[in-house]
Amino acid sequence: MPEISERGCLMPASPIRKLVPFAEAAKKRGVKVYHLNIGQPDIQTPDVALKAIRNFDQKVIEYSHSAGNESYRRKLAGYYQGIGIDIDHNDIIITTGGSEAISFAFKVCLNPGDEVIIPEPFYTNYNAFALAAGIKVVPITSDIRNGFALPPISEFEKSITPRTRAIMVCNPNNPTGYLYSREELYQLRELVLKHDLYLFADEVYREFCYDGNQHFSVMNLEGLEEHAVLMDSVSKRYSECGVRIGALISKNKKLIATALKFAQARLSPPSLGQVIGEASLDTPPAYFKEVYDEYISRRNLVIEKLNQIPGVFAPMPKGAFYSVISLPVDDADKFCQWLLEEFEYEKQTVMLAPATGFYATPGLGNNEARIAYVLKKEDLTNAVKCLEEALKVYPGRK
Amino acid sequence: MPEISERGCLMPASPIRKLVPFAEAAKKRGVKVYHLNIGQPDIQTPDVALKAIRNFDQKVIEYSHSAGNESYRRKLAGYYQGIGIDIDHNDIIITTGGSEAISFAFKVCLNPGDEVIIPEPFYTNYNAFALAAGIKVVPITSDIRNGFALPPISEFEKSITPRTRAIMVCNPNNPTGYLYSREELYQLRELVLKHDLYLFADEVYREFCYDGNQHFSVMNLEGLEEHAVLMDSVSKRYSECGVRIGALISKNKKLIATALKFAQARLSPPSLGQVIGEASLDTPPAYFKEVYDEYISRRNLVIEKLNQIPGVFAPMPKGAFYSVISLPVDDADKFCQWLLEEFEYEKQTVMLAPATGFYATPGLGNNEARIAYVLKKEDLTNAVKCLEEALKVYPGRK
Ligand SMILES: Cc1ncc(COP(=O)(O)O)c(C=O)c1O
Ligand SMILES: Cc1ncc(COP(=O)(O)O)c(C=O)c1O
Repeated sequence: MPEISERGCLMPASPIRKLVPFAEAAKKRGVKVYHLNIGQPDIQTPDVALKAIRNFDQKVIEYSHSAGNESYRRKLAGYYQGIGIDIDHNDIIITTGGSEAISFAFKVCLNPGDEVIIPEPFYTNYNAFALAAGIKVVPITSDIRNGFALPPISEFEKSITPRTRAIMVCNPNNPTGYLYSREELYQLRELVLKHDLYLFADEVYREFCYDGNQHFSVMNLEGLEEHAVLMDSVSKRYSECGVRIGALISKNKKLIATALKFAQARLSPPSLGQVIGEASLDTPPAYFKEVYDEYISRRNLVIEKLNQIPGVFAPMPKGAFYSVISLPVDDADKFCQWLLEEFEYEKQTVMLAPATGFYATPGLGNNEARIAYVLKKEDLTNAVKCLEEALKVYPGRK
Repeated sequence: MPEISERGCLMPASPIRKLVPFAEAAKKRGVKVYHLNIGQPDIQTPDVALKAIRNFDQKVIEYSHSAGNESYRRKLAGYYQGIGIDIDHNDIIITTGGSEAISFAFKVCLNPGDEVIIPEPFYTNYNAFALAAGIKVVPITSDIRNGFALPPISEFEKSITPRTRAIMVCNPNNPTGYLYSREELYQLRELVLKHDLYLFADEVYREFCYDGNQHFSVMNLEGLEEHAVLMDSVSKRYSECGVRIGALISKNKKLIATALKFAQARLSPPSLGQVIGEASLDTPPAYFKEVYDEYISRRNLVIEKLNQIPGVFAPMPKGAFYSVISLPVDDADKFCQWLLEEFEYEKQTVMLAPATGFYATPGLGNNEARIAYVLKKEDLTNAVKCLEEALKVYPGRK
């Protein structure tokens, strides 16, 4: 029997998926599980998008251009110009989700063995894409006590080696909800210029910024035209996760030309998804206002209630729809499993994402968990109540 | 300015794409270009599929299961069972096109530096996926004089090294149109068992088999449960190239479990595509009958006419909708460019895919080109006429 590849064996199984069988078993026992663990918004996809599907009238569903339909890229460039990001349709490659944009960037910019520095906790799948590309993620630890702000640049400096090729940030951040400030991004600008590195920015949560904070894109850091690479996606912006449309964006012509070769190999991004993505650009501002109001009230509710639980600390997220919170427990992995396997409160329990999966440094995050406030407020209230009751009786309470 | 990765530089640009600017220039000059170069069928997508799009009524376009919707996988397993391939929905991972299935298989089964043996000429993008995965394609040359049949097993034996991990075939074949026989596949069975290798089969053209020839799937080679890996796609079967849905199939549980980890990293295949793929399984037999009749008459027409051109040899393809033909020219790359740049016949010309792009061995295929009979018969007739006239006047004629 032939063997599985080493990289296949090393590829981590998602830490959340490991809990799925326990959640299913709980449901079988008649326990209602509140899913605070997922990044799938419950918000409705814009009507203009749903209408575009129903009105689809092509007779042959053909491959699109490998970089995506020109009409879509032009209109998308217009969206960026509208928010003050000066790019052209030729700077854009439409990808199969933001996921593919990340994976293209890794392969185009880094050789096997090269290193990308990423503040941790970070989106777990960066690890998977790095492993698939044969590159190494070097984590720099950020701290819950200052809401996971950018670690001091001196920490980055210390981690730079001859193999370092890129710094990567997710802004606003999944899993922490932190929104990097203009000042922090300027610090990174200095650093990447000094060491001639790429600056990757995953901005898929750009529209989700709260309390009057403005999002500042890496594309607006002057003098970084050859260095800055933007990964984007329609998944969260329009609640179109299943559409599988994202974008890789850079003003570095050689980078885009090289990424196009990878794009040509896989032929085309989804054609229907592009029709939807293009139509979504006409989403009325009222849609975003409503979504914003909904998330802000969810956030305020859940963070306030969490901080009222003795021993729990939840920093106030300034963006996205996540927060990494600390819990008074021995081991968050065990606790999250126990919540599903052994606990119930009035026939209900809650599923969290243990934070260890978001850290690359072993041992970190073991008293933290990520929550996503993608549920209705009533459900959020019940979910937090479950957590509160659980912490009263959890045997590993600290 | 940071550098592009070595693999990015090495990634070949598609040989067809290099000709695209010349085709565009020809069109600008008012010359009609017959595209015999592409694999995009003009056949209509089945009505059941188009109807499924128009009737799409979900309000949130969510991520699907990373392995694909269970309802789709179950129904798809039914399709395979119906054609005598005994697999279960758990043996299937729905992928983003057949392309992703190939790329998963390479990464799951081979380590960087490992080798996969593939008869050449082969589908160019195998090279690209191999390069992206850091693996090496070892070609075994097949011969136009016997219609590109499987090269003798002794040739494979000679190419096996300690790094060989897999043999790959595309059946029916793109670019040659060759259909491997049951006997040839049994020879490969012996070989992979003897050396404990994987046997990858790209069967995306399964439905396109002519003259009463039956397709024989690697999944039906007994005793190969742990070795056989099937890559499939809806792209050609239902003329749904833009839908981006394929499948990776194996009875090797560990392989599927490992591929699932790669699938989880990219979250999900297109959700709408799966709705379409699932609906397409109800395509009535009359659709395939019509498609078959159309291709068979196109094939007969184009192959007959090609063989009437002095110096041209076109083997009769038994499957898919391609043929690699030999041309009486000095250099097919030059000739194909000349056709677009310098030649016209009654304001028309023809675009072919030079075969060099399908060979891994340098220097091979330089008097061959691939044609795809994906045009209406009238256009095919005109296209072949252009080729005939062109060969009368081409300065590099041999
Ligand atoms: C930070 C971040 N980046 C990228 C993605 C990938 O999303 P998609 O591939 O759906 O665009 C996600 C999805 O959750 C994410 O949270
Ligand atoms: C032999 C072969 N395999 C795989 C593919 C990939 O097709 P897709 O990704 O559209 O399923 C193609 C497309 O032309 C092909 O010809």
